Amino acid sequence: MLEEFFSPRSVAVVGVSRDEGKVGHIVFDNLRAGGFTGEVYPVNPGADDIHGFRCYPSVTAIDGDVDLAVIVVPARLADGVVRECGEKGIRSVVVITAGFKETGPAGAVLERALVETARSYGIRLLGPNCLGLISAHSALNASFAVTMPRAGSISFMSQSGALGTAVLDWTAGEGIGLANFVSLGNKADISEVDLVKAWADDPNTKVVAAYLEAVGDGRGFVDAVSALVRHKPFVALKSGVSDAGARAVSSHTGSLAGSERAYDAAFLKAGAIRAHTVEELFDVAMAFSRQPLPAGPGLIILTNAGGPAILATDACERNGVSLASLENDTISRLQEVLPEAAALYNPVDVLGDAPASRYENALRILVDDPNVRAVLVILTPQATTEAKLTADAIAQIARESGVTTLACFMGDTAVAQGVRALREGGIPHYPFPERAVATIAAMQKHRRTLEAPPSAPAPVEADRALVAEAIAHAKHAGRTFITEQSASRIAEAYGIPVPRGGLARDFAEARKMASEIGYPVVMKIASPDILHKSDIGGIQVGIEDEPALLVAYEEILARARSYMADARIWGVTLQQQVVDGREVIIGVNRDPQFGPLLMFGLGGIYVEVLKDVTFRLCPVTAEEAHRMLTEIRGFGLLRGARGQRPADLESVVDVITRISALVMDFDDITELDINPLIVHDRGDGSVAADIRIGIGG
Amino acid sequence: MLEEFFSPRSVAVVGVSRDEGKVGHIVFDNLRAGGFTGEVYPVNPGADDIHGFRCYPSVTAIDGDVDLAVIVVPARLADGVVRECGEKGIRSVVVITAGFKETGPAGAVLERALVETARSYGIRLLGPNCLGLISAHSALNASFAVTMPRAGSISFMSQSGALGTAVLDWTAGEGIGLANFVSLGNKADISEVDLVKAWADDPNTKVVAAYLEAVGDGRGFVDAVSALVRHKPFVALKSGVSDAGARAVSSHTGSLAGSERAYDAAFLKAGAIRAHTVEELFDVAMAFSRQPLPAGPGLIILTNAGGPAILATDACERNGVSLASLENDTISRLQEVLPEAAALYNPVDVLGDAPASRYENALRILVDDPNVRAVLVILTPQATTEAKLTADAIAQIARESGVTTLACFMGDTAVAQGVRALREGGIPHYPFPERAVATIAAMQKHRRTLEAPPSAPAPVEADRALVAEAIAHAKHAGRTFITEQSASRIAEAYGIPVPRGGLARDFAEARKMASEIGYPVVMKIASPDILHKSDIGGIQVGIEDEPALLVAYEEILARARSYMADARIWGVTLQQQVVDGREVIIGVNRDPQFGPLLMFGLGGIYVEVLKDVTFRLCPVTAEEAHRMLTEIRGFGLLRGARGQRPADLESVVDVITRISALVMDFDDITELDINPLIVHDRGDGSVAADIRIGIGG
Repeated sequence: MLEEFFSPRSVAVVGVSRDEGKVGHIVFDNLRAGGFTGEVYPVNPGADDIHGFRCYPSVTAIDGDVDLAVIVVPARLADGVVRECGEKGIRSVVVITAGFKETGPAGAVLERALVETARSYGIRLLGPNCLGLISAHSALNASFAVTMPRAGSISFMSQSGALGTAVLDWTAGEGIGLANFVSLGNKADISEVDLVKAWADDPNTKVVAAYLEAVGDGRGFVDAVSALVRHKPFVALKSGVSDAGARAVSSHTGSLAGSERAYDAAFLKAGAIRAHTVEELFDVAMAFSRQPLPAGPGLIILTNAGGPAILATDACERNGVSLASLENDTISRLQEVLPEAAALYNPVDVLGDAPASRYENALRILVDDPNVRAVLVILTPQATTEAKLTADAIAQIARESGVTTLACFMGDTAVAQGVRALREGGIPHYPFPERAVATIAAMQKHRRTLEAPPSAPAPVEADRALVAEAIAHAKHAGRTFITEQSASRIAEAYGIPVPRGGLARDFAEARKMASEIGYPVVMKIASPDILHKSDIGGIQVGIEDEPALLVAYEEILARARSYMADARIWGVTLQQQVVDGREVIIGVNRDPQFGPLLMFGLGGIYVEVLKDVTFRLCPVTAEEAHRMLTEIRGFGLLRGARGQRPADLESVVDVITRISALVMDFDDITELDINPLIVHDRGDGSVAADIRIGIGG
Repeated sequence: MLEEFFSPRSVAVVGVSRDEGKVGHIVFDNLRAGGFTGEVYPVNPGADDIHGFRCYPSVTAIDGDVDLAVIVVPARLADGVVRECGEKGIRSVVVITAGFKETGPAGAVLERALVETARSYGIRLLGPNCLGLISAHSALNASFAVTMPRAGSISFMSQSGALGTAVLDWTAGEGIGLANFVSLGNKADISEVDLVKAWADDPNTKVVAAYLEAVGDGRGFVDAVSALVRHKPFVALKSGVSDAGARAVSSHTGSLAGSERAYDAAFLKAGAIRAHTVEELFDVAMAFSRQPLPAGPGLIILTNAGGPAILATDACERNGVSLASLENDTISRLQEVLPEAAALYNPVDVLGDAPASRYENALRILVDDPNVRAVLVILTPQATTEAKLTADAIAQIARESGVTTLACFMGDTAVAQGVRALREGGIPHYPFPERAVATIAAMQKHRRTLEAPPSAPAPVEADRALVAEAIAHAKHAGRTFITEQSASRIAEAYGIPVPRGGLARDFAEARKMASEIGYPVVMKIASPDILHKSDIGGIQVGIEDEPALLVAYEEILARARSYMADARIWGVTLQQQVVDGREVIIGVNRDPQFGPLLMFGLGGIYVEVLKDVTFRLCPVTAEEAHRMLTEIRGFGLLRGARGQRPADLESVVDVITRISALVMDFDDITELDINPLIVHDRGDGSVAADIRIGIGG
């Protein structure tokens, strides 16, 4: 996909200016300076040649085939140029020009026209209002960013052009190589989803990194990233998390950011790694690009100083990175090569006077230990420290052993040579241990993502016709909500337990139904003319047996008649009386970007005051539902705290997956709340005591 | 304090070796290379001269006065050298030598002897097992760290020598200046507390930074830091937060780390700023050293690109940094100098093509706005960007306006000149916006610390004699706990409301007491031989009237007798039955380092499952107690959620301060729990339904 963007044989730059300060001139200069070896065609109707290159009056005037056109003409001319590209048979176009949607309604009109023209010719279009793109392995700099990155295996997309420029300059300084760089601009056609798909197939790309401000096609994004991460990690910094940030996004790109919760759930669903700062984004991407994934948990810290090792172990605790326990044999072997005062357990401290050979001896033993799946080597510059030689040894052992290896050489000039050697040897280096550990945590997270058995939601048997009819009926009646009775029937149709019950038209039916339901029961007057049943004594709870049932029946009917003599009375509804249990809430909200977002939490004050809830994007699998249960802070209350028996967790998982199936099947359901779901002790199931369903669309 | 350590007129180095690789040689070389202009005396009985310096056989053989002695002899000789220093009249000694407490019991014995010798001569001693110290303003490098920092205004102490070396090298590379550097070593005499006190008075020190693994004298630390922060900020990285980390500490320095909660509470009490990484430690310290404290809340972000500004606003949200709202007049003035497309609200975006003059014009207007108390200038390298000139303008305006100014020039070579100019101009620079914002957050926190009115705990009227006697009585009886009855009386003595009640020896007394207390009451068997009262039916609650009282009395006594025929029975205790209210827990635990640590939380599952609690070091003031209430996640339940009336918060604050007074008055109280304190609606007070007090000491 998008091959002509990243490996074109020929490139036309339309709008090349003779004026050196102009964007059109810079783009052309960058293209030449980048070392691109294909054909290059400058297009400018007012010039014969530029830098000795023959200049064409239009793309249609070019003799040879053109794979990629880069457009830098003024906004009002862009549409015409795209049309000419179409006529010329060019199918890949970058529009660097600004002045479109980001400037307001008039620009948005221009942008729509541009896209329609492109579509009519089958052209894929990057931009407008972007920096362009760079493909390091094709020596292609089709952007107005001056820096050509060294060829590496990180492909990076940025929804901010300026951030892209800064990152290109910064990665160059840090010696971080890139495979591709794309400035997304207004994403009029090519979006993050297209790039994720393109880079999934790109052999030069080992990891995909992204700076995103909003995602357009949420479901497409989740699907594309889910597919990608099976082969390569996806690390993204999504900004606009704050209200203030969200405002800045909308004024910046004119696009609306989806809710934070939905983004978190989408990243989780897709197996993406979410970075929270630019630094973290590249700390993690760099490690993925240079080192293999750890084969399992178990980090060993090798150090020549105690203090930094403590900082690293603290960071392991914070980040949930488990430390390796060494085999006895490993300890014995370490003992043979290390001084007596050395610490032989994790962290392994080779002491301040350690030369490179001591690090090397220890490291060779450590990577042999089956419990060691990742290594963090910490070095502080001391009198006899050999930073460069130590770095060389680390790189060699990492290469030979295949064990994931990161390093932290603390200091500046005293370790500079060592840091350079680490880079050259493919060892990710971090100036402080905390950043190295956070990176290991991200790698371990990705490993767990890959190791999790592929899980799909189990099919749910359901009476879909009943639900479709109930929704149609409510819509026909002009309602945006399903009635209580109907919501119960919808839930039942999806196998969600609701209190047993129904309408009894006379006492004989009531008696039969009550014995089927089982006492105690709740009785309510059934009349379309009586809305506030409890106000007139039309509800009775705790009916324990048949005599009480008769008394209740007579009384409720009498009260109804005395309240309104001519009320239409259908009879009474009977309902199983749901007794004690723990209350949870299961809710669904439809996110504009990502679709149904399912929430789980403890009911009542736990959700209202403590906001102790967790979210997943639908469809929610049983595995995910299980994890949701354990994620809330109050999980102990369900598991059985203070001597209580455990609640029936399986039944909650079951209800979650059924609710998920329901909202996935019916797009018309905009929101749904079971509040509360009464959860009984283990083995005794749960009951949806109150269900509200909102519809729309 | 400690003047001779930081500004000595003469220094003796004892144990100078002729062997270049030896520590003694390196220390002497460093001293000379650092540029120290005072007298320098090498001491080595086996040499006549070293590098042309006359060598002395011992310190006593030196003709002139010696202010400071640096000792690098083997551990077993150190004590003798300290004695000679004492004889010579030297009162300031650094023992770099290792091989003391950190090596085990034998080393600890050597160390104790060393300290005793020093004390007997009135010598202050730094170390042993340390790197030494550096005073940049005295050009004094009395350490074996090669790097002499450039003179600045950060004074840094490190409990890890290796971390110190690495930081010295790193700060040199980053252009961060230091006033003093001290490697604490084993802290046999001079501790972090001494240094905090010394640097409080040091005119060269504007900010104190520390890497600490443990604090010895917790109370002394809190007092010293509290006094320091009135004049200069204190920023510290305290490691060993994790269990794993704590193990590493104990194997590293032989000192025991206090509990994490206590350290957090101590830092809060003292007004210290706690950093979580080395990077953060110096990010913050550097800003304090170079820029004035913001005069109030209100940050303006000035940028030439949207993306990084969004990252900055996100970080503001995360860190609780409030953005400034600009005056209308400011907006109008900005409008006059900025292009039409510029964003005039916060963040102010001067657009990608902004030259230095546009930044300058905008910044001059912004620092005039009374709502702007801090500025973050973000710059991304674009075609027309003038990084160096922009930096110069920023530095000049910051100097002239006095408004706190930080900068983030993103990139590497493209902004290198600008970054250099920022450093030279005294503007703290951060490679990414998130770190700059976190630093602003720390500065704002320090400002709030300084602005908070000084608050002392209000005096509590109490019957201290009663408490002293109750404790003495329990100790005399060999108990580690105060009995329930006695604990109630202790609480009452400090004005803490407890349920009314007492011992009734017969039914007549019970009847009289119950009518005084008011029904309903709770009755319990009173017998020193029956411990688990409820197990034998020795407790009855909800006694509503006199007939029920008689039944309960007879039954309880009968059950007690049938349980143990010869039990000593004192009668029954009666207690007011405390009815409905919200349950909270107030507990105190005595931390070995920091003394009584008071916990507040909601009772029951909130503390047991949700761990929704907060801590303060005692004495807790009313202001602190108020803040504790709002800090728990479940505060909404106390304030009145779901239509409930607010709870009587004032009474909770009152109980907290009284408990605090009690445990401050009586060191013998090792732990105390009020669980639950039943809190009634506002105005109705609260009652300590159950009080447990542990004693010891």
